[in-house]
Amino acid sequence: MALPSTDTSRHDNTLAVIRTLRDRGPAARVDLGTLNGISSATVTSISAELLQQGLITERPPEAPRPNGRGRPKTLIELAPDAACVVCIKLSINEIQLVVGDFAGQVRHSEHHTVSTLTLTADSLETLLEEKISAVCTQQLEGFQRLAGICLAVQGVVSSQSGTVIWSPALSFRNAPLSARLAERFHCDVLLENDANCIARVLAAQPAYADCPNLVVIMLGYGIGMSVLINGVPFLGANGSAAEFGHSKYQPDGALCACGRRGCIEAYASDYALYRAAAEHLELPSGDSAHPSEQQMQALTQLALQGNSVAKRIYTEAGQALGYGIANVLALFNPDLVLITGSGVRGFDAMQTAMHSAIDDALVAELRGTTRIESCAWDRDMTCMGGIAMTLNATDSQTLLASG
Amino acid sequence: MALPSTDTSRHDNTLAVIRTLRDRGPAARVDLGTLNGISSATVTSISAELLQQGLITERPPEAPRPNGRGRPKTLIELAPDAACVVCIKLSINEIQLVVGDFAGQVRHSEHHTVSTLTLTADSLETLLEEKISAVCTQQLEGFQRLAGICLAVQGVVSSQSGTVIWSPALSFRNAPLSARLAERFHCDVLLENDANCIARVLAAQPAYADCPNLVVIMLGYGIGMSVLINGVPFLGANGSAAEFGHSKYQPDGALCACGRRGCIEAYASDYALYRAAAEHLELPSGDSAHPSEQQMQALTQLALQGNSVAKRIYTEAGQALGYGIANVLALFNPDLVLITGSGVRGFDAMQTAMHSAIDDALVAELRGTTRIESCAWDRDMTCMGGIAMTLNATDSQTLLASG
Repeated sequence: MALPSTDTSRHDNTLAVIRTLRDRGPAARVDLGTLNGISSATVTSISAELLQQGLITERPPEAPRPNGRGRPKTLIELAPDAACVVCIKLSINEIQLVVGDFAGQVRHSEHHTVSTLTLTADSLETLLEEKISAVCTQQLEGFQRLAGICLAVQGVVSSQSGTVIWSPALSFRNAPLSARLAERFHCDVLLENDANCIARVLAAQPAYADCPNLVVIMLGYGIGMSVLINGVPFLGANGSAAEFGHSKYQPDGALCACGRRGCIEAYASDYALYRAAAEHLELPSGDSAHPSEQQMQALTQLALQGNSVAKRIYTEAGQALGYGIANVLALFNPDLVLITGSGVRGFDAMQTAMHSAIDDALVAELRGTTRIESCAWDRDMTCMGGIAMTLNATDSQTLLASG
Repeated sequence: MALPSTDTSRHDNTLAVIRTLRDRGPAARVDLGTLNGISSATVTSISAELLQQGLITERPPEAPRPNGRGRPKTLIELAPDAACVVCIKLSINEIQLVVGDFAGQVRHSEHHTVSTLTLTADSLETLLEEKISAVCTQQLEGFQRLAGICLAVQGVVSSQSGTVIWSPALSFRNAPLSARLAERFHCDVLLENDANCIARVLAAQPAYADCPNLVVIMLGYGIGMSVLINGVPFLGANGSAAEFGHSKYQPDGALCACGRRGCIEAYASDYALYRAAAEHLELPSGDSAHPSEQQMQALTQLALQGNSVAKRIYTEAGQALGYGIANVLALFNPDLVLITGSGVRGFDAMQTAMHSAIDDALVAELRGTTRIESCAWDRDMTCMGGIAMTLNATDSQTLLASG
């Protein structure tokens, strides 16, 4: 049913207030108005309704400031238990389950080692159902409702149809994973590319507010990318855009996990660095992660300490990464390229070669003024993005359910 | 001054009617309504106003159809003389001036051989002023008004500031060309990338209506690209996006006109093909175009007739082009890649190697379902796009001037 236009705008303003509280934390009504271009009267009325619905709470005013200037403002904040989201991050040989509250904060996180490449679509769905059921039973007490579930998957996904088209973590293709989970748990199920989840978190940070055209490169076992154009993830025609890891460094180059040769990933991902090192260097013994975090840290240390083999490997990785980024600059001309992911641990060993390669590849006019920076990795970042996206997508339903 | 919303929507509907008539030619009122989601009554009222303003004319109804079914409809069409646009295409050693009428049709075209690389920003501006003045004096009689001027330039431009940032046709950089022309000719001056002009023409063709994510690659002396995302040219942060010609085939590869090595352009552009051939093959003598169209046609003929040197050169060009397109597919995942430009004359000699390179570079899931097609080149296509863009940008002013 179409709402009359005044109700639509009231609804939009309510959603804007909720999202601002989620992105920025507790805020005064007047600031919520300014940030969203809404009158104070409207914010007051909206917050009264949200208070009554139990979706926000008021913080007692802070003590007056020592300098005595300005009356302390009453802050409002999201009621964390009003709803929750379960986010599942699926990567090679690991499944992470995280519970996020209505304020977007992580309330519970667990990791499971699973031989993902041996799963069938059916056994994966069964496994996810079991794990999510267990989390629901053990972790969701106290929450008013389960607003939604997010599957954050490495690889090519169609968010629209809820289908995993191709993931390096899985042996099967074209699996419509969302539908069965939605039916089983009676809630919306979002399927997202893991790099887009991370870009969601980074783009919300004030430090990057002036970068509407943002490229996030995720180094790790594989290499992922998210491209935000005017703040919106760019998906392409079928959801397989931004596959930076499989853009090319050189024809007939190193073998990639995808089966083709010369991809950026075949030089600068963890498996590629480890493969190049394993023949020549003594590294700690591995675990299911192939290579393990411990192995990668040891290799990075060797490079930073000046071991010539390790240095050469990171230099070549940096060069491949630099040439790949040069193509991204030539084709996307973004405001900022942010490099993150667990593989960012090796960035210091790569970055000189990376910057040289970019300068070698592009004349100054095409190199442009794009900032290229690294950014510390947080293991929960993917799920935090998935939680934020799922909450935003389900706020209307939460409002309705609490009305 | 902000107009009340009903006036704004009337204005938008009027612009939509004008644009539909420009893109599709003469149309019946009822079809204009259906195409734009406007009621018949509104179209009737809008067309009455446009008739009175002299911006459209009525065609006498055609004779009844032989099968006797359906009354012939009265068609309306744009009055071609209601306004005109001068479009200047600036490429290496050539300046083309075209006059387009209000219906978007080319009414006059002239080419001038100019040593563009020896020009200063000042001498280029003086030259453009002279040429445009001459065209205005000789060709614009009978037009109601000069709606605008378009500069379509190969290279990186900032349309917003009217600055040519970097063009292979010019030795200077960062030239704010639009402002002086606007002052001299008292009209809007649009500065556009040449490939975006061509994409504008192609995107309006019914054959590509189902391709909102469209990549147009322009082969010629250099190699240009335009990326339309949901039908809108993607410009990036500073206007230098889509510089496909300077994305990389291989590190330390062939020398490019930009001064760097390994760019796609250094293999698949006219100058690169000619350079590779000139040492080994007998070609017609050149002209100012370096190489000339005649030379390039001769070289293409040799390749298609089986000359082994020429075949090898086009095979390598096709391979470089294919690897470049593979990166475009991985990063943009478009609906369609259209290859055009004067260099499309050699496409038949390149395309087998091009398709092989794409299949070598990408697994099927990343290759995706993107159509890759060539499209016949029309020497006026750039200016036709520039004319359409300039007319669309100035329709509001034309309406006001004729009101």
